[in-house]
Amino acid sequence: PTESTPKPIKVQELNVYEINERDRGSPAVLKLSQKQQNSLGDLVPFTNKLYTGDLQRRLGITAGLCVLIQHVPEKKGDRYEAIYSFYFGDYGHISVQGSYLTYQDTYLAVTGGSGIFEGVYGQVKLHQIVFPFKLFYTFYLKGIADLPAELLGTPVPPSPAVEPAPAAKATEPQGTIPNFTN
Amino acid sequence: PTESTPKPIKVQELNVYEINERDRGSPAVLKLSQKQQNSLGDLVPFTNKLYTGDLQRRLGITAGLCVLIQHVPEKKGDRYEAIYSFYFGDYGHISVQGSYLTYQDTYLAVTGGSGIFEGVYGQVKLHQIVFPFKLFYTFYLKGIADLPAELLGTPVPPSPAVEPAPAAKATEPQGTIPNFTN
Amino acid sequence: PTESTPKPIKVQELNVYEINERDRGSPAVLKLSQKQQNSLGDLVPFTNKLYTGDLQRRLGITAGLCVLIQHVPEKKGDRYEAIYSFYFGDYGHISVQGSYLTYQDTYLAVTGGSGIFEGVYGQVKLHQIVFPFKLFYTFYLKGIADLPAELLGTPVPPSPAVEPAPAAKATEPQGTIPNFTN
Repeated sequence: PTESTPKPIKVQELNVYEINERDRGSPAVLKLSQKQQNSLGDLVPFTNKLYTGDLQRRLGITAGLCVLIQHVPEKKGDRYEAIYSFYFGDYGHISVQGSYLTYQDTYLAVTGGSGIFEGVYGQVKLHQIVFPFKLFYTFYLKGIADLPAELLGTPVPPSPAVEPAPAAKATEPQGTIPNFTN
Repeated sequence: PTESTPKPIKVQELNVYEINERDRGSPAVLKLSQKQQNSLGDLVPFTNKLYTGDLQRRLGITAGLCVLIQHVPEKKGDRYEAIYSFYFGDYGHISVQGSYLTYQDTYLAVTGGSGIFEGVYGQVKLHQIVFPFKLFYTFYLKGIADLPAELLGTPVPPSPAVEPAPAAKATEPQGTIPNFTN
Repeated sequence: PTESTPKPIKVQELNVYEINERDRGSPAVLKLSQKQQNSLGDLVPFTNKLYTGDLQRRLGITAGLCVLIQHVPEKKGDRYEAIYSFYFGDYGHISVQGSYLTYQDTYLAVTGGSGIFEGVYGQVKLHQIVFPFKLFYTFYLKGIADLPAELLGTPVPPSPAVEPAPAAKATEPQGTIPNFTN
């Protein structure tokens, strides 16, 4: 049999906001390096809230681990290896891995998913707005069926002032997806 | 070139039991949150034994890390982010990531594999039988060749009383797969 | 619709060296088990340097976490669950997960990637040359476009004496890839 080369595949763009509203005890900064400066050995488990890109609905949470890799003095920041998931209530989840730099946007790998994200692959752009409290992500997803419309509202352009809609922040029924993860 | 949409793909179901026989020093509960209650910051490395769904053969082990995300008082349980692998001796391994809830079944992402599981994707259902000692998993696997028959015996229905066959528990040759992981 | 079975897919082989030059404060051995012997509970965040298989160019770094799973006295070594990424400067990254045995070669799963490695899957062979300072990897990659020639030089056969070319070690322009990760 002859070898097949990859064919053009439909890419679906999905925008979400991750916001730390300081009510989940996150992040847990574990200074296991026992050094004053951020250093290899420090670990940072975290969990934040997740909203649609249009900020009209609470989706769920993020959950995972950042492994501090190095302090980068010339950037006044740090490099982390990030291993975490995005939870979308009844829709399922997406797992990712890659670098989180506190001073620069990065692309992480989409390593898999469940529910409507079963079999997903691709990458995700991490854009930090306010360290470490507001982040905007653009997923480029392949291998899955068309995403539901309620996830695909026109994203609010990222800025430090963005806030979830009041109904989303209060997790009122019209401001959430089915069985949003909490 | 036109875009291709995902085609129906063959799904292979694979059932396994994960059993903690309390002889591997697992789990290692690291109370790094320094809080009495389970809290973000706690980490739980673990490794348990892995058996076929029919409980006739010892396959190998599980190995990985649970990151405590939150205590869920109304469920009297906890949410973990779980990142681990299932080892199947000479057959290779499957890596997974997703949520482990002590009070509810979940689906995790299959993120990759080696050996006969090279290129695998899909998801896996985690069903807890006896916390945290007996779990039953149903993998829904795509992207790989037909699995060997010895992995595909009819599963024993999950119940608290299930036990591996004596030859499997004793890792006698007829109760194991080739070079089972230990 | 009828089910499709996997077709033969082009596999690209990519060789790299991971070298610990003892200048990154790595590894950080966290003896969280509080046992003298290596035991479940110990964690080892790490980051090393990454070179092309021909040792002519510095690519970037590795970054991630080894979870100690068990000490294996009969092999005078240890089993780790390894979750990490390989960074290739502007080319992007590859994430992997699987076992790292200090006494034996292993295959890990390629779980995803970014940049030119977006959508990648497959496996990688880990061959240890000098514990834990020199490792040689052979990736078997699928799902991506043809790799650039500068990554594909003929690999130097692994041996304890191998060293990066002076221009690569000194990260001179002719000894690096574009914006090599540091």
